[in-house]
Amino acid sequence: MKVDLNCDMGESFGVFEVGNDEEIMPYITSANIACGFHGGDPVVIRRSVELAKKYNVQIGAHPSFPDLMGFGRRFMNCTPSEIKNYIIYQLGALREFAKIFDIKIQHCKPHGALYMHAMEDEQTARAILEAIAEIEEEIIVFALNHSAVEYLGNKMGIPIALEAYADREHTKSGSIVLTRRGEKVSNYNALADRVVRMIKEQKVITNTGEDIDIKADTICIHSDTPGASLLTKTIFNSLVENNIKVESLKL
Amino acid sequence: MKVDLNCDMGESFGVFEVGNDEEIMPYITSANIACGFHGGDPVVIRRSVELAKKYNVQIGAHPSFPDLMGFGRRFMNCTPSEIKNYIIYQLGALREFAKIFDIKIQHCKPHGALYMHAMEDEQTARAILEAIAEIEEEIIVFALNHSAVEYLGNKMGIPIALEAYADREHTKSGSIVLTRRGEKVSNYNALADRVVRMIKEQKVITNTGEDIDIKADTICIHSDTPGASLLTKTIFNSLVENNIKVESLKL
Amino acid sequence: MKVDLNCDMGESFGVFEVGNDEEIMPYITSANIACGFHGGDPVVIRRSVELAKKYNVQIGAHPSFPDLMGFGRRFMNCTPSEIKNYIIYQLGALREFAKIFDIKIQHCKPHGALYMHAMEDEQTARAILEAIAEIEEEIIVFALNHSAVEYLGNKMGIPIALEAYADREHTKSGSIVLTRRGEKVSNYNALADRVVRMIKEQKVITNTGEDIDIKADTICIHSDTPGASLLTKTIFNSLVENNIKVESLKL
Amino acid sequence: MKVDLNCDMGESFGVFEVGNDEEIMPYITSANIACGFHGGDPVVIRRSVELAKKYNVQIGAHPSFPDLMGFGRRFMNCTPSEIKNYIIYQLGALREFAKIFDIKIQHCKPHGALYMHAMEDEQTARAILEAIAEIEEEIIVFALNHSAVEYLGNKMGIPIALEAYADREHTKSGSIVLTRRGEKVSNYNALADRVVRMIKEQKVITNTGEDIDIKADTICIHSDTPGASLLTKTIFNSLVENNIKVESLKL
Repeated sequence: MKVDLNCDMGESFGVFEVGNDEEIMPYITSANIACGFHGGDPVVIRRSVELAKKYNVQIGAHPSFPDLMGFGRRFMNCTPSEIKNYIIYQLGALREFAKIFDIKIQHCKPHGALYMHAMEDEQTARAILEAIAEIEEEIIVFALNHSAVEYLGNKMGIPIALEAYADREHTKSGSIVLTRRGEKVSNYNALADRVVRMIKEQKVITNTGEDIDIKADTICIHSDTPGASLLTKTIFNSLVENNIKVESLKL
Repeated sequence: MKVDLNCDMGESFGVFEVGNDEEIMPYITSANIACGFHGGDPVVIRRSVELAKKYNVQIGAHPSFPDLMGFGRRFMNCTPSEIKNYIIYQLGALREFAKIFDIKIQHCKPHGALYMHAMEDEQTARAILEAIAEIEEEIIVFALNHSAVEYLGNKMGIPIALEAYADREHTKSGSIVLTRRGEKVSNYNALADRVVRMIKEQKVITNTGEDIDIKADTICIHSDTPGASLLTKTIFNSLVENNIKVESLKL
Repeated sequence: MKVDLNCDMGESFGVFEVGNDEEIMPYITSANIACGFHGGDPVVIRRSVELAKKYNVQIGAHPSFPDLMGFGRRFMNCTPSEIKNYIIYQLGALREFAKIFDIKIQHCKPHGALYMHAMEDEQTARAILEAIAEIEEEIIVFALNHSAVEYLGNKMGIPIALEAYADREHTKSGSIVLTRRGEKVSNYNALADRVVRMIKEQKVITNTGEDIDIKADTICIHSDTPGASLLTKTIFNSLVENNIKVESLKL
Repeated sequence: MKVDLNCDMGESFGVFEVGNDEEIMPYITSANIACGFHGGDPVVIRRSVELAKKYNVQIGAHPSFPDLMGFGRRFMNCTPSEIKNYIIYQLGALREFAKIFDIKIQHCKPHGALYMHAMEDEQTARAILEAIAEIEEEIIVFALNHSAVEYLGNKMGIPIALEAYADREHTKSGSIVLTRRGEKVSNYNALADRVVRMIKEQKVITNTGEDIDIKADTICIHSDTPGASLLTKTIFNSLVENNIKVESLKL
């Protein structure tokens, strides 16, 4: 048994600091690096790529709607062409830094409202997947269970990693309950146990109390959830104690 | 005898349209494509790369200070680290689109105030050239005669193309007279004659009346100069009539 | 019989020019002035207020979602609190310039996607109207026939001006058919006749062919519709010829 | 003896949080509120104005160059007309919120690089002061000792408050040593003693060891200096213990 741990990284912007990247990076295996549209700026991106390399963490593009004021967490009614080109732009900006540090982009995980919308809306899912298809490199796209991205990605032959969440509630359909800001975590061990169960038994109890099947190639922890670094460490240790390998998707 | 003709392209932003790219592209050999910091957005970049490919025009990154409101024409006191990473970010974003259209980035020409500052300021020149050195691909950097970029680029082994201007006055030092907005051109033939003389005799009369030596591997025309498309066509035709080959730098 | 003619003005941004404000201003009575979130910058706002004053045109705030790249024409899922404060911020910025020119803000017309969403969504309509209520000055809010803004504005005691469009099709419900970019107008006289009929007979034929009742205190012409200045002039002249006074709402 | 204590407030942007406004506000008498160009957004501005009112703190506009990525700490070569209109725009946006809470704008303190540049450059100083003159309300402008703003403000009849700094070194000329980021404070009592001496003896020891005369109507503490809230509290208490009244400028 194994699983990837992913976390949003590099979401600071200029002097505006978000997240405890240095504390979290040692315990994850995939870093979703903000590309400048909701957070991240060129100086931050370099620092983030360098930090990921230091801890041998795989990197992915974390593209967003162009909404710095809303941190990419507000749906924007962009056209598929806009979305496709926003993905390409942001991924390319990140790739140039990755090249400098001689590493590859493992994955692409859209951020915030773009991610959530793509999970339900076929047109948006297609726009994202077409961007990846055009780029013609093997880039894994992250998707929720039973989402439009999973369905279309499989159809289009684009590698998909199914994702579950450590710090969000899951719904009956396999989706998650979106919040604009992360709430303070207190129940670290309970959340870690839930993650372990998702890997071992492929089960999770939803926000409405059902016990559903779930498949998780990768587990997401939000870096702006207060307590994120302790949560990540707790989950990492619980996984190891349960003989679940924590490793990136391309190992 | 030969010369490259370059022009800033893709500087529109969303619905805000600047320049007559479609009319100018057929008469140039190198397009400096805006990368989003002073103009250009992901949709515009794709359109610009596609248009350049259609006319077999070489493309270059046209990175800027992050100043959309000032169109990158206002000096900003950025650190060398900021400048270096801004160049890498913008060039990378453009490169991803170039890859999709299966073309390479021929050159990098900083935009506006960043260009002018780099010509005189060694620290800025070095930041730009270090960005190109880090990228480790053969990318030609554009520079004015006797500028810090020419001097340092030669020292660092980075290919430099010397540039003169069709629609700006030259100073005694080989620099140009910067303006915030292009003025309407009327004397198309006189400007074309001046370009021809710069190539044939390697001479130009400055804004203060001296006749100086000038070396021009490439001639720049500003796309936002009113009358730019007719000027470009006139120059192109004058060059051809004078048996000067108009061809890109890497041919 | 009388009617107000309104047009979006001051939507240029830095060197990016949009609209023919100088040509249109003489033929309108109310100018909706962009406030910096979708177009307009402080220099443009001053110029626009000055131009409105020169032609004795009443001004209004034209606030938008914060989306320069999409020109405010893409819905953004902002909270009511965000919308309310965005309105106050933008209106205040405009008001400071108005004060300098010793004129008052007559009205507030939300721009693009914010306008369209407010017409149908009560929560958004309420956020806009609450902003106006908090400001405690008599500011008229523009609204489509049978819209949430008309309904709630009447209920809250905020003055409403009902609006019809010169260059957009109306729907059966009194709404309009939104487009991301204005299409070139050719049928100037037909459009002017339609406007005259909206005032004289309070009737318009919809995009699906029905003849519906419509009430128009003010008629909107989009300044970025190609041909806008000729259209505005044609409508102005047709109204005058039909003995309909063209005057602002507060005269 | 009395003095005003001022601090930059409301510099957060969306989810990006900067400063400990809640902890600092009780100990200051004037809050310089960011207006959206380097920090601050409409939601943050409202919250900041409300917080200032709660603690009976006077508010001022804290306008900046339009440089969110650089937090307004990078000089931008704007024209006097641009600067003047940027001030008016930002001050107006703030004033609308102030009106809602039924308070007035006491002062205007330009932010970061705009502040520093105005102190030395007459053209910039004049642009700022002309903005205030145009607004025609009694608004106090903050200035360093012996600065262009002090000199021109006095000449133009605009009220000036002379300012010294709690957490920056002063130079022989009465200016301060600018830094891009605040350094962690450890010597709270020494800094408080220095402030007390500036008020009691009107003297301060410069960064090069001279003991110079200084006049301080108001003392600035940077809210992003690590330890700012403890520093502010320490200074407040030291002033009170030394029988120096801490009160705003308009009391």
